[in-house]
Amino acid sequence: MNANVGADVDLYPSRHGADCGIQSRYDPIVYGEPDRDGGLTQNQLERYQQQGYLVLDNLFNNAEIERLIDEVTLWQQAFRNSENDNVSIDEHGDIRSFYGIHAQHALYSALSKDTRLVSIAQQVLADDVYLHQSRLTFKAPFVGQSSFWHSDFETWHVEDGLPRMRTLSLALVLTENQLTNAPIMVLPGSHKSFVSCPGETPENNYLHTMREQHAGLPRQDDIQILADINGVDAISAKKGSVILYDCNLMHGSSNNLSPLPRRNAVFVYNAVSNRPREPYSGMPARPEFMATRRLIQPIRAQHQQLHF
Amino acid sequence: MNANVGADVDLYPSRHGADCGIQSRYDPIVYGEPDRDGGLTQNQLERYQQQGYLVLDNLFNNAEIERLIDEVTLWQQAFRNSENDNVSIDEHGDIRSFYGIHAQHALYSALSKDTRLVSIAQQVLADDVYLHQSRLTFKAPFVGQSSFWHSDFETWHVEDGLPRMRTLSLALVLTENQLTNAPIMVLPGSHKSFVSCPGETPENNYLHTMREQHAGLPRQDDIQILADINGVDAISAKKGSVILYDCNLMHGSSNNLSPLPRRNAVFVYNAVSNRPREPYSGMPARPEFMATRRLIQPIRAQHQQLHF
Repeated sequence: MNANVGADVDLYPSRHGADCGIQSRYDPIVYGEPDRDGGLTQNQLERYQQQGYLVLDNLFNNAEIERLIDEVTLWQQAFRNSENDNVSIDEHGDIRSFYGIHAQHALYSALSKDTRLVSIAQQVLADDVYLHQSRLTFKAPFVGQSSFWHSDFETWHVEDGLPRMRTLSLALVLTENQLTNAPIMVLPGSHKSFVSCPGETPENNYLHTMREQHAGLPRQDDIQILADINGVDAISAKKGSVILYDCNLMHGSSNNLSPLPRRNAVFVYNAVSNRPREPYSGMPARPEFMATRRLIQPIRAQHQQLHF
Repeated sequence: MNANVGADVDLYPSRHGADCGIQSRYDPIVYGEPDRDGGLTQNQLERYQQQGYLVLDNLFNNAEIERLIDEVTLWQQAFRNSENDNVSIDEHGDIRSFYGIHAQHALYSALSKDTRLVSIAQQVLADDVYLHQSRLTFKAPFVGQSSFWHSDFETWHVEDGLPRMRTLSLALVLTENQLTNAPIMVLPGSHKSFVSCPGETPENNYLHTMREQHAGLPRQDDIQILADINGVDAISAKKGSVILYDCNLMHGSSNNLSPLPRRNAVFVYNAVSNRPREPYSGMPARPEFMATRRLIQPIRAQHQQLHF
């Protein structure tokens, strides 16, 4: 299929009842070039192309991470027993997810523009980028729930209207992601196909996805097929590292049985050339705190140390 | 405390309301000696003493494992949509757990007497041994449920009346236990203490434990303390390997998100000198298929290859 199709064509149809399964990806994975002056090397880009993710160690130092965690602790206190559309609270009053963290505090706003993150997104996507979404994810000790296999892009396409795959996530590790505290599990190579999901999109689906995802879940048979190709990876990463992963990489995580929390700050960068259209579901767009529509402006990356 | 206390003393009280927490272990972990003629070496016994478990690679060959799995497949077909007290079936009709497998088929009866298993139990416990329990555990792909932290001994003591810790489990790996298919997670060193649990024992508790454990669960604070000492290990082991673990080692597992099943055949050997008394809960004893009471006779180990 020609990549220059009209804007009215849905290249990645999903949630059209029983008509689903593994389909082609029509977009590049790596748009850019290796960077001789820093950034990702040719070897790193090739691995990203093949497996769909990379772990970049020690991008942020301990003092920065401590400062970022201090802020999370304050949010935790502020949001306990309160109701906010953009915050999901578990049965213990702990934050499960918190959307729009870059708009919540100057520190996280600065983080979202930090050269160490933005330059990677610009390099891989070979375009100016803006923030499609930011969020804090928190898998609480003992009670953090499982998240079934999914492609983020499937949701961003169907519910937010991102037309093409020119988007990536950078998850900054705030507490170590170990093999025993419900690490992100991925199907390496799965980003090279698109898995169209069964079912429909319920009205105001985002209100449910904050707690438990029901729409946009692939069939078990399709996950089995993708896992047979390259197996399943569990991603461990130390505090201050960044996990870079393609918008269409199939991932999930089990419940957190361990006494250790798993906390990441996730920033989703989209190419400005890939601006959202109307949601392909035909439903109203999700709120701005989950998916940027109004303020699509290229980020000017800032060299900085995060100390306020 | 003197180990030769009267039979009427409950050395390991648990489920007495709010009176709970981390207490002493009054029993040895390794009762026996290193074996110069095979069996466990001094180094292995020391590691078992310290961490509470060992993985013994390649004890059974592929042909044997295939034969054992063939039998599981037949059970799966036979038990689908049927009701049996000793079999727990999940919502898809798949076996979740199956107690008394040594009494179900000659192959598994032979396996329970196999020298490769029995000699290890005899060596570590330095006594004749008998089978307190046998079971198949099956973590189904995608839907296999999480099992919270617990010590097996806590249940075997409270509900089955095993007075002392002179018992161990040998889990024969039928399908590979990987880091991504809900492996057994353990708190290394936790077997050196006893964690008394809060709450009471409900009547006919075993009917509930087949599906979900509610009694005999330690407090999260106690798990945190034990995890702070030596961390959390996830045990990976290949097909045909055996995981040896102490009766009092704190363990659990997360849900199985992966497309790969995790299946183990577990044999629990108890020293004949440690025969069960009346359950310390004051409740009636559990059924014979869960906890042997009637037929306590030393196993005569058999050298064999498992082909029928």
